[in-house]
Amino acid sequence: MENVMEKLVALCKRRGFVFPSSEIYGGINACWDYGPMGTRLKNNIKTSWMNAMTRLREDVVPLDAAILMHPRVWEASGHLTEFTDPLIDCRHCKTRFRADDLDFDPTLPDAQCPKCGMRGTFTEPRRFNLMFKTFMGPVEDTANVIYIRPETAQGIYVNFDNVRVSARKKLPFGIAQIGKAFRNEITPGNFIFRTREFEQMEMQYFIKPGENAKWFEYWKEQRMNWNLALGIDPQRLRFHDHAPDELAHYARAASDIQFQFGFGTDPWHELEGIHDRGEYDLSHHQEFSGKKLEYFDEASRERYIPNIIETSAGCDRTLLMILIDGYREEEIKGEKRVFLGLHPRIAPLKAAIFPLVKKEGMPEIARRIYEELMQRFDVVYDEGGSIGRRYARMDEVGTPFCLTVDGQTLTDQTVTIRYRDTLEQERCAIDRLRERLGELIAGA
Amino acid sequence: MENVMEKLVALCKRRGFVFPSSEIYGGINACWDYGPMGTRLKNNIKTSWMNAMTRLREDVVPLDAAILMHPRVWEASGHLTEFTDPLIDCRHCKTRFRADDLDFDPTLPDAQCPKCGMRGTFTEPRRFNLMFKTFMGPVEDTANVIYIRPETAQGIYVNFDNVRVSARKKLPFGIAQIGKAFRNEITPGNFIFRTREFEQMEMQYFIKPGENAKWFEYWKEQRMNWNLALGIDPQRLRFHDHAPDELAHYARAASDIQFQFGFGTDPWHELEGIHDRGEYDLSHHQEFSGKKLEYFDEASRERYIPNIIETSAGCDRTLLMILIDGYREEEIKGEKRVFLGLHPRIAPLKAAIFPLVKKEGMPEIARRIYEELMQRFDVVYDEGGSIGRRYARMDEVGTPFCLTVDGQTLTDQTVTIRYRDTLEQERCAIDRLRERLGELIAGA
Repeated sequence: MENVMEKLVALCKRRGFVFPSSEIYGGINACWDYGPMGTRLKNNIKTSWMNAMTRLREDVVPLDAAILMHPRVWEASGHLTEFTDPLIDCRHCKTRFRADDLDFDPTLPDAQCPKCGMRGTFTEPRRFNLMFKTFMGPVEDTANVIYIRPETAQGIYVNFDNVRVSARKKLPFGIAQIGKAFRNEITPGNFIFRTREFEQMEMQYFIKPGENAKWFEYWKEQRMNWNLALGIDPQRLRFHDHAPDELAHYARAASDIQFQFGFGTDPWHELEGIHDRGEYDLSHHQEFSGKKLEYFDEASRERYIPNIIETSAGCDRTLLMILIDGYREEEIKGEKRVFLGLHPRIAPLKAAIFPLVKKEGMPEIARRIYEELMQRFDVVYDEGGSIGRRYARMDEVGTPFCLTVDGQTLTDQTVTIRYRDTLEQERCAIDRLRERLGELIAGA
Repeated sequence: MENVMEKLVALCKRRGFVFPSSEIYGGINACWDYGPMGTRLKNNIKTSWMNAMTRLREDVVPLDAAILMHPRVWEASGHLTEFTDPLIDCRHCKTRFRADDLDFDPTLPDAQCPKCGMRGTFTEPRRFNLMFKTFMGPVEDTANVIYIRPETAQGIYVNFDNVRVSARKKLPFGIAQIGKAFRNEITPGNFIFRTREFEQMEMQYFIKPGENAKWFEYWKEQRMNWNLALGIDPQRLRFHDHAPDELAHYARAASDIQFQFGFGTDPWHELEGIHDRGEYDLSHHQEFSGKKLEYFDEASRERYIPNIIETSAGCDRTLLMILIDGYREEEIKGEKRVFLGLHPRIAPLKAAIFPLVKKEGMPEIARRIYEELMQRFDVVYDEGGSIGRRYARMDEVGTPFCLTVDGQTLTDQTVTIRYRDTLEQERCAIDRLRERLGELIAGA
């Protein structure tokens, strides 16, 4: 698996999925930039999530809250006190460690520094807050400290009432948001799995207290189905229900959807989390802000603080899952073939259009097809190199269909459609291509 | 106009376009959150821009670079030294001012503080950098200072070679990116016009030196056409070409597209900028990084630093323009009507589906239509209140078409389509609605 990850990182750079951020300056630790293919893939993932979570359902609406929020938000949420890692320093060599990453107890008097080898030189563990802080306004003092949000969820909670009233929603209803979040992780790593800047896809579902178990199970199923609909191997997805002692401070119940990413001692890692947060969030924001966040239930004539079921997915992790799950190597007649088996709905390009050769009018026909199809789909035109090399390039970026204009096209106005996964070919009339491509994507 | 702005801010909150950020905590200066309608509108603007700039053209590819970049980037770009405002303090009352905002010269010995009225109490003006800074990693010292990007453009420049090679592009070609940027503005304001956190839509076009004037003019025209295609009143859009003494440190030529926003002494303000940046960016990054960023031109057998034409638009400003331009008040038979004349392609909702009354099976038919149309369009179902109130709500969020199931539907399986702008109505068979709605949006 480490091998697949290495190959993937190389492929991602070579084909424009993911580049090390600021690479010409030697990079910046655990930051990554999405290239042309990665940007398209990521946008397709986000659109798929947003459509499934909002457009295709009546009870969830979208939100796009700012990254910079009032600092009191992080007091109310518990982040200022709870969102910490334990750090210790070696007094001798000044190296800093995350205490829970060490495989021994650093508070013991003879604990040995793994860096300089001295014993008994550790400081007491200190809580290190993972929020990035900065200053707003022209004065850098504590009165102006603000935090760069470590999660998008709080933007939803503080807007609960504004959304409820303006969208005229009754319980149960949800608010869905995609956006960047930032955590000053001490040990980021595994490519885009754990980064200091990342994009979340979060949905908060507001419910009547007591209905928690029902909606928690409902959303577990919904979210698993969405991941499966991306075409992910069902054998590599599973739930991990948290035991009571694993629960975060805000959670009454929690289940992770795990994907078999493959790296690490245990190859299963969290892809997204579904959490029963109870009344934690709205009651804390009500307490800290002094604004009533109760809901009046017309049916039961009751007034209560809504409970929340959260689904919290990482967009970058989802993208990494799709690449790992989609990576294929095949040997066909002694030739190695590498391709990404991406679902056509999320593939960065839906089709490539090739003239078989650069003569006999084939490029002109192929370009006309390209210009027609680009009106509706992300497609490319490519006349560079042998047809085999052009197929190989498209395989590596997961393009599901290649359309080739060849000798037969000149006589019957059809092109070949080559299927990425099976290598089967069919012929299709040029004037049916747009419709056919739509069918192939929808039917996949 | 101030009046229209006030009405718009109220409408934006009432109907879920824009809320003050962290409002339950009293808000946070000049930060705004997009509600359900604003999020949909903003996403439609971004999709329209991305499609026009990348999918519909062969020579521009998308990128999505990280917000956190290597700090050397901001040395090379000139931001560390040039991206500043002049600030002065009153030594007596400790109030801080932006020196160029005062309508007198604060360096004169008898200059009077507008706050406390004391004379001669001002400090010397100091350069205040507008970049937000923070610390990456567990130690808060100068070695770990990083900046939160004040523009997305630098993410494109540092990736120039990675994109060029992986996307196999020859000059001229462009890289387009949408993303958040942050500036610690001293005087933000005018709703979402100038905010500390904002979203840019930037495209950098890499060209052969000497072709600058041609491509500068080309992109001015392209960008004006895109704004016009949003349906904006052509009388409210104009170019403002910068005089030589107005040019930023990196620019050889610059032209703003201005929109008549209406606020301020001069109602025209910058919507987006088109800049001839010459070789400034790549030559500085080459110098600071030590990496060759030259391009080998196969046609002319020359090696040179590409020049850059930039188009830099603000997504939030574009959205504000669309709202201001679209805001309409009409009086019809003594009744006031407020509506947003948004282009159907970017309107948050494409259609609303109503049963005329909640009986005779009309809700069931309307819901079936709703569930069919949501597969392809952002639509809502609404049975709450009189038909007039439901129309009024849709007018205020700019929904171009309202489909009503009425008595006639029960006999001939048609519904009325009511046009937002003209109030004209047509009847359409239910089984043609999906196609008809597609035609109406495409043909608008």
